[in-house]
Amino acid sequence: MPPIDSLRPFFAPDGVAVIGASATPGKLGYGVISNLIKSGYQGPIYPINPRAHEILGLSAYADISQVPDPVELAVIIIPAPAIPDALRACGRRGIRAAAILSGGFAEVGAAGAARQQEILDIAAEYGIRLVGPNGVGVLNPHSGLNTTFIEQIPEPGDIAFLSQSGALGGALIDWAKGEHIGLSYFASLGNAADVTEADLIRALTEDDHTRVITAYIESVHHGPEFMAAARQTTPHTPIIALKAGGTQEGARAVASHTASIGGSDEAYAAAFKQSGVLRARTVQELFDTAIALAYQPPPQGPRVAILTNAGGPAAVAADALARNGLSVPEPDETTRAALRAALGPAPQLFNPIDMLGAASSPEYEAAARVLLASDSYDAVLAILVPNTANDPAGVADALARASADADKPIYACYMGDVSLGESRQRLHQHRIPVYDFPENAARAIANAHRWQIIREKPPTPPPAPNTGLYQVIASELREKVDSGQKYVGEAELYPLLEQVGFPLAAWAAAYVKTEAEAFARTHPGPFALKALSPDIVHKSDVGGVALNVPAAQVGKMYWELQAQVRRRAHKAGLQGVLIQQMAAAGTEVIIGMRRDPTFGPMIMFGGGGVYVEALRDVAFRIAPFDAEEARAMIAETVAGRLLLHGARGRRPGDVAALAELIMQVAALALAIPELSEFELNPAIVHPAGRGVTVVDARALLA
Amino acid sequence: MPPIDSLRPFFAPDGVAVIGASATPGKLGYGVISNLIKSGYQGPIYPINPRAHEILGLSAYADISQVPDPVELAVIIIPAPAIPDALRACGRRGIRAAAILSGGFAEVGAAGAARQQEILDIAAEYGIRLVGPNGVGVLNPHSGLNTTFIEQIPEPGDIAFLSQSGALGGALIDWAKGEHIGLSYFASLGNAADVTEADLIRALTEDDHTRVITAYIESVHHGPEFMAAARQTTPHTPIIALKAGGTQEGARAVASHTASIGGSDEAYAAAFKQSGVLRARTVQELFDTAIALAYQPPPQGPRVAILTNAGGPAAVAADALARNGLSVPEPDETTRAALRAALGPAPQLFNPIDMLGAASSPEYEAAARVLLASDSYDAVLAILVPNTANDPAGVADALARASADADKPIYACYMGDVSLGESRQRLHQHRIPVYDFPENAARAIANAHRWQIIREKPPTPPPAPNTGLYQVIASELREKVDSGQKYVGEAELYPLLEQVGFPLAAWAAAYVKTEAEAFARTHPGPFALKALSPDIVHKSDVGGVALNVPAAQVGKMYWELQAQVRRRAHKAGLQGVLIQQMAAAGTEVIIGMRRDPTFGPMIMFGGGGVYVEALRDVAFRIAPFDAEEARAMIAETVAGRLLLHGARGRRPGDVAALAELIMQVAALALAIPELSEFELNPAIVHPAGRGVTVVDARALLA
Repeated sequence: MPPIDSLRPFFAPDGVAVIGASATPGKLGYGVISNLIKSGYQGPIYPINPRAHEILGLSAYADISQVPDPVELAVIIIPAPAIPDALRACGRRGIRAAAILSGGFAEVGAAGAARQQEILDIAAEYGIRLVGPNGVGVLNPHSGLNTTFIEQIPEPGDIAFLSQSGALGGALIDWAKGEHIGLSYFASLGNAADVTEADLIRALTEDDHTRVITAYIESVHHGPEFMAAARQTTPHTPIIALKAGGTQEGARAVASHTASIGGSDEAYAAAFKQSGVLRARTVQELFDTAIALAYQPPPQGPRVAILTNAGGPAAVAADALARNGLSVPEPDETTRAALRAALGPAPQLFNPIDMLGAASSPEYEAAARVLLASDSYDAVLAILVPNTANDPAGVADALARASADADKPIYACYMGDVSLGESRQRLHQHRIPVYDFPENAARAIANAHRWQIIREKPPTPPPAPNTGLYQVIASELREKVDSGQKYVGEAELYPLLEQVGFPLAAWAAAYVKTEAEAFARTHPGPFALKALSPDIVHKSDVGGVALNVPAAQVGKMYWELQAQVRRRAHKAGLQGVLIQQMAAAGTEVIIGMRRDPTFGPMIMFGGGGVYVEALRDVAFRIAPFDAEEARAMIAETVAGRLLLHGARGRRPGDVAALAELIMQVAALALAIPELSEFELNPAIVHPAGRGVTVVDARALLA
Repeated sequence: MPPIDSLRPFFAPDGVAVIGASATPGKLGYGVISNLIKSGYQGPIYPINPRAHEILGLSAYADISQVPDPVELAVIIIPAPAIPDALRACGRRGIRAAAILSGGFAEVGAAGAARQQEILDIAAEYGIRLVGPNGVGVLNPHSGLNTTFIEQIPEPGDIAFLSQSGALGGALIDWAKGEHIGLSYFASLGNAADVTEADLIRALTEDDHTRVITAYIESVHHGPEFMAAARQTTPHTPIIALKAGGTQEGARAVASHTASIGGSDEAYAAAFKQSGVLRARTVQELFDTAIALAYQPPPQGPRVAILTNAGGPAAVAADALARNGLSVPEPDETTRAALRAALGPAPQLFNPIDMLGAASSPEYEAAARVLLASDSYDAVLAILVPNTANDPAGVADALARASADADKPIYACYMGDVSLGESRQRLHQHRIPVYDFPENAARAIANAHRWQIIREKPPTPPPAPNTGLYQVIASELREKVDSGQKYVGEAELYPLLEQVGFPLAAWAAAYVKTEAEAFARTHPGPFALKALSPDIVHKSDVGGVALNVPAAQVGKMYWELQAQVRRRAHKAGLQGVLIQQMAAAGTEVIIGMRRDPTFGPMIMFGGGGVYVEALRDVAFRIAPFDAEEARAMIAETVAGRLLLHGARGRRPGDVAALAELIMQVAALALAIPELSEFELNPAIVHPAGRGVTVVDARALLA
């Protein structure tokens, strides 16, 4: 059963039963019935309450078994302990969709988590899909379905909102109502025990009314599934997500709110990027971007014309657009001439096009028409500050007329409050997004443009990783896990990595001095010597590393190194030294892997060295990904851009070999789930065509 | 005459003449008279218009000379060409303050700039101070003075606003009116030909009504004066500034708006930091921070309690507070027990204190009282999302009652729109700042806390720089300027820098091979050899640098280096080589100086090397500054923090010597105005106690 079919009863059910309906105003069970009636739901509504005969004019039923056909959705608002029996009764009655509003599940600790598992087991037994528990239900303004107790009912519109916070949904709806912005669908996921954000994204992709999906996420429930759903959706319908819990403080708040324990913020950032999800940094940006994408086509390029009656706000807008990666070019000659013809000699026409304070509605309309038709621009931002001489509502109508004939987007920024009257709402009714401040407009326009780029080059499904190759070493690592080993150092790791083709510097483990000397005779020097000890993780901290040792010094250094380590770490067991050929010149980089609890193997690339590590010049991706993504990851860092383009005194590096090595780390991580962390630090990237050399490696097992 | 006295007529004039008053509704000269009357100005108002006898019930005068006493302020709104004569007439009539609203001056090009100079000359002749031209005048809600044609008149309050954009002032006033936020003073500076932001800051420091100064700045007119005024003011009255024109796009917009050509954004950031000015990144942040500081005391520390009826918004708030450098600690046991007693068993008490959706006004009040009295917190953020079960206005009153007895700040975040009714305005009437979104609240609280830190440790006046020392070399550099020289390379610069005590690596200019060899015999090697040529700025680009040359190779390298350069830059004149002792091991850093058009010498410190330069790990300060500031500058960069604290395998560097060198560069720049750019790149910072070595230097003259 494809998800869209199984979720249809949540969007457009034929009959709704409300288990826990109440005849007492102020109770949630009253609010839900009242909202279902007020929002204009056309199907039958069945209040279930053993002690009522009638609620708000509807016949009440003592038990779900007595409800006549049709009934497809159960809304449940009874205390948590009673819910398992109620859910079984729904199952027996043939109901296959339930929205559970009650709390008292995983968010309240172990007992609640057990109860949540119990209802999941019951749902599985009867084939029931669950929305919630611990949410406020669902709302479809197009069909009049409203199972929430949120006070306001939004107008029907294009924006879907999935929220792991019912209250944030309530706030959005209250705001949307005031601004005359319509919603297509709202779902409060609560603990998302069964139906997750991924399920709803899949379902909403097919929803005729939804042009934009917005989401408030505390934690994604199954990372790869979310990414797959988003990847399918974002080329057609933009997804904008706000992720909470990115800081320690936020994570603690989230844990006590919806029992969410999420992956790292870097993992979310990478997952969103790889699946085309636009990330909003603030609630305001979430809303602002939603209306930009719902009401207007996305800008096809980055060039924005600023049309204004106010110089200061326009300067602020120019800064903000530039800081968001957009451009504010001057008009071409044709455009300039057309503007001059439309506006006369007074306005400044550099962009901002500054028509001065008293700019009239016809002037706004004429200039907007010219700019929307101009080859110089991909979008228009019209700014207005109210004064005694202008007419904000008239300008709103004028912009709407100009926009009606255009295939490019126009956005408005109306700054002020009391003198704007209802002009903002009027712009929204005209489907022109309007913002309070230039900076908000700039962020929204930049996000809309980002979606256009995603649309042009949709995220590709990741290649099936070639994990077979790594099976030869998987069993050996598994044996180490079974023996309780956690840390795997160079000497143990190198033989395994060699088997699967990692480009290691030539090396040998020397347990007696002559072994080291023999290696030095048969390989070109100089050499790195590292103390061999299973007890020392950070060898350089205890003087356990000697670099650039000439062949003649290897024997002497064999003993010196061990003596030095013994002085500083006298309890560590020492087995000899690891001798390694020094790598040819190149750039130090780090490739790492950490297993994220939500998204799985997360690969890190960054510049190497103490200093650069401190600067956090790093990029992250969730594995698997293709070579193009690996190159994008490299290009995201300053270290990588220097490798790609070279710099004064530096030739470009072998980026192809580096990308290949990043892919190898990703494949290794996918093949061997027991590997919990892995790091090549550093690898040396040689000039283009000369490859990459790994000179240190370590792994953690779990 | 101290500035406060000369500016008093702009704040509280005894009599206002309006030159260009009009009896025709819709004209600006009508709007000004009408606003003066409507805003309740108590002194006499004299419309000046040769063709009117009466305007809005006031006797009109044909000429300013006919106006009876008292008259202290002239508001001028006649076309620009007529203004010089009008200003002379004002001077003869004994008026010493004029607000010129008309445009047509420096913002329109060269002819306008000449006219601006003309009115400045007239003003100087008669001792008149000017506000404007090209602004909208001044507004003092406390005295009822309103010389603007802005439609709304704000309530009297605590926030002063200085704006280089009249429209931004109009937008702020319109918004403040809607939110019931009061202003103490508004001045539209326009082109700020005479009275600048620095003058007004000085004057407003003494203004009884002003608790916060906010400013929209396109360019500061005299950098050092602005910094001095701000430095005196910010320990007592916070200044929050929004600076436009920080990007190329914004700078172009600003140039065509108020004829401002500003210094670099880095210079503004440094100047604001050094003088205690809080920088707002957005218009919204400017407003939000203003009400935080106007209504509540600043938080004494970073610990914020979140009180909420909504888990999602509280999680967003926790993230935002943490991202802004504040903390969200859990309550101590006493506080927890008091909360439990006040709220019963249901709420989560981890912080966020989550009272669930239906939280009542008494619950908000009781919890706010506990948190405001708690030793665990420095501030409280109360979040509310409206729903059918709560009472936003009642909660506003409850928070006000709790706040009345507290000496700590409380802030509110009310999310929504239609269901909030007038509750936001009510919070403002109670002097509780309220925000639309948690992120806005977090930024404002963080800024308020930042001001508390400034108050505790006010910016110190910079030391008188010891420039005398540098006079010995100033004349030599001046001679080079006179001879038309622009670029000064190492061989010319080193002898000068040596004279004034810069820590240079031992060096010699060798014009014949034997000189280089002699140097190598008398100094410990190895050596750096650099081609000596007045024509080559970037020696390493043409193979003109050889590093780590052993003494025995110096003679050979003398010729090889020159041959190599000749192959790659065959037109360059070659004079020999500069030989230099290689510096001992250490960390590469860069110290630079650029002369900012607004603020003067701007000193840069950052990590060295191609890679680190690309990462822009740099800090800026305006000279002069003291050693503590130099250390703060070092600590601001990652490179500097590694020097301060060391790192794996690195000892701490000689930060004292580094700070001293930074101060030397600052003093050199202050002493020699002809030096337009100067760079030590790199200097090597040795381990603590071992000093710093300069290994390359260059200068540009102007």
